[in-house]
Amino acid sequence: MAHTPLLLQLVIILTTARLCGLLLRYVGQPPVIGEMVAGLLLGPIVLGTWFPGFHAQLFAKEALPPLTSLSTLGLVLFMFIVGVELRAPNGVRAQFREAGAVGIMSVLMPIALGLGVAPLVYPLAPKGVAFWPFALFMAAAMSITAFPVLARILKDRDLTQTRIGRLALASAAITDVFAWILLALVVALLGSHTGLNGFLKTTIGMVAMCVVVFGVLRPVYAWLLARYAGDGRPTLMLLTTLMVGLFGCAAATQWLGLHEVFGAFLFGACLPRDDRLLKYLMERVEYVAIVVLMPIFFALAGLNTTRDAFVGAGLGAMTVIVGAAILGKVLGGAAGARIARHSWRDSFAIGSLMNARGLMELIVMKIGLDAGVIGPALFTMLLVMALTTTIATSPLVMLFAGKRADEPYGPVNRV
Amino acid sequence: MAHTPLLLQLVIILTTARLCGLLLRYVGQPPVIGEMVAGLLLGPIVLGTWFPGFHAQLFAKEALPPLTSLSTLGLVLFMFIVGVELRAPNGVRAQFREAGAVGIMSVLMPIALGLGVAPLVYPLAPKGVAFWPFALFMAAAMSITAFPVLARILKDRDLTQTRIGRLALASAAITDVFAWILLALVVALLGSHTGLNGFLKTTIGMVAMCVVVFGVLRPVYAWLLARYAGDGRPTLMLLTTLMVGLFGCAAATQWLGLHEVFGAFLFGACLPRDDRLLKYLMERVEYVAIVVLMPIFFALAGLNTTRDAFVGAGLGAMTVIVGAAILGKVLGGAAGARIARHSWRDSFAIGSLMNARGLMELIVMKIGLDAGVIGPALFTMLLVMALTTTIATSPLVMLFAGKRADEPYGPVNRV
Repeated sequence: MAHTPLLLQLVIILTTARLCGLLLRYVGQPPVIGEMVAGLLLGPIVLGTWFPGFHAQLFAKEALPPLTSLSTLGLVLFMFIVGVELRAPNGVRAQFREAGAVGIMSVLMPIALGLGVAPLVYPLAPKGVAFWPFALFMAAAMSITAFPVLARILKDRDLTQTRIGRLALASAAITDVFAWILLALVVALLGSHTGLNGFLKTTIGMVAMCVVVFGVLRPVYAWLLARYAGDGRPTLMLLTTLMVGLFGCAAATQWLGLHEVFGAFLFGACLPRDDRLLKYLMERVEYVAIVVLMPIFFALAGLNTTRDAFVGAGLGAMTVIVGAAILGKVLGGAAGARIARHSWRDSFAIGSLMNARGLMELIVMKIGLDAGVIGPALFTMLLVMALTTTIATSPLVMLFAGKRADEPYGPVNRV
Repeated sequence: MAHTPLLLQLVIILTTARLCGLLLRYVGQPPVIGEMVAGLLLGPIVLGTWFPGFHAQLFAKEALPPLTSLSTLGLVLFMFIVGVELRAPNGVRAQFREAGAVGIMSVLMPIALGLGVAPLVYPLAPKGVAFWPFALFMAAAMSITAFPVLARILKDRDLTQTRIGRLALASAAITDVFAWILLALVVALLGSHTGLNGFLKTTIGMVAMCVVVFGVLRPVYAWLLARYAGDGRPTLMLLTTLMVGLFGCAAATQWLGLHEVFGAFLFGACLPRDDRLLKYLMERVEYVAIVVLMPIFFALAGLNTTRDAFVGAGLGAMTVIVGAAILGKVLGGAAGARIARHSWRDSFAIGSLMNARGLMELIVMKIGLDAGVIGPALFTMLLVMALTTTIATSPLVMLFAGKRADEPYGPVNRV
């Protein structure tokens, strides 16, 4: 039986993603939740169980490489935009101490809880994975905050310009820098089958790459952009140069034994913080990346899920993971905010915001899966954790920030 | 030996395409020529001969499906934009008679010459291809005019608002409608291994699809766009709906035994002629499609070239094809313009403009290759023909339209 042609796969994946997004919008959830749920629905747990023939045809083995390249391109473009968007939000300097307290606490607490639950769920890790890399991966997976989803929720709730909103954004930026460094170290540790030398090679390569990206590429691209896009409208040539830099950095981190998303993010982060350029790039990259390509990423991620996570001991482990994830972020964030002398109510609102993991968690999970540190069962549990924490963010924030949570989302122009 | 990772392939393909574009810009050629040349350079004739090991690693067999899906997406998005852009240029109604004369003559003459050279080059056709489908394909391949390249050349030469420019654009639109219908009939004829029934199924399916697209999808999308994008800014939901319609139409023509580009073009053509929408979609789709994905299409097209086209009898056949292609368009277009009582000078300028085949010819060639009506040798000859006619357009127009041809192209924002 021939597998489903690519264009039909796209129709099915996009339609499912957007229908889920539409349904979930009416209960006040951002579109990304819909895409995550769509991935789960198209995976073996739902579609594969109810319509095994259709599922087998839709995601036939030979249909995966073509879809994977589209998903990889989407992921690299998306992480590039996340890097380009990364900037000190308004007033972050004034709030640096506060944001530092919240940011560090909402990394430390999840790390502590991640290390704490690691022994409990270690039996679920794939054979051959040593305890410490696994435990550190769980710690990193717990400590991610999804900056884009956070920004989106704040915007939808009209909280972006409030004290809480600005603090949460600044803290999330700090948290993510720590969490991604931790994750990169874990991946370096995992990739180093050759022992300490391999680990050193990857970490030294990573440091060297940061030096090259920020020491060489940053001024070169800043000059190019100022010279050829002074009016905020880069030429075709310049746009290609940007894409070549992006794919080059992504390929370099891949070659270093890290995941390509690190290079994509790093390259985006090295570009000048220019709002016109950001808007220009977003308009041009986001459409295809977010509307067409990212749903493919979610659908492929969903293929790695398994029902095992929902039965017997799996259910217990999942509960522990979800509970630890929520507690770590909410308590950690709240503790940081209390240290910075916020009210209890505001502190918990900030903690709840830090709890949004969204898409970023899926990227972390994908990195873990690609590196072999987690298998389908843990992947499924972390997916449920990502969904639960992200879905819980909006209601929790409304609970603590005092606004009603039932107002529907407006027309959606951006994820 | 492991093949080149996807991201590195992208770096190599994009860099080659843009470097060629940059070099050719200085001799006054549009960027698309550079991309076509890059495809040829990366193919077996140049890279495959000089660096066979590198070439084999860059385009290893297992690396082709992932690249093909990216190329297909690019092609579908590109043809969608071509369809969206298709509109009656200013003043076409007043010029309808003139444009009709030029348009029809610049289809008829190339068809006549295409049918004329077909017996000469038929020995080069793949075994098992009947003469008439082959001859009709050659006729269709000769009669294409590249609307986008034409528009681009006119814009660069500041001729868009002149009488010649407007007439050429209107005529090219008419030419292309005829040429694509002819091509669709040829593909239907080829796909019908089941004889007359298969041909009838494809043609009836195609007519039914036109009825559905223009009778159902057109009003539905017009309503959706007016309702949800009245301000010219479609929502995420609406953008997905557009993409689902696009991929659905492309998948439908593919299923009918036609190429997916027909459905993509048809869907683009059925959308309302709204300049704001066009600009919005172009900005969002063009960037990834043209900067990232189309160079992959050219590189994959280049893989189908062969040195055989340049040796012995091949060289003679190629000369005949190139000569017939140029004569057909220049004389046909000029004859049409003479009928409409233009001066000899203007008539030849218009004929020269109709001669630009660019990217569209490559799409036609790809359709022919996919349908099995031409093999690598004829593919190579047609590629040389497409390059020659497109490269010749600018100098010929300047010769006849009387402006100097050596002014360099300005900053390139659009292809």
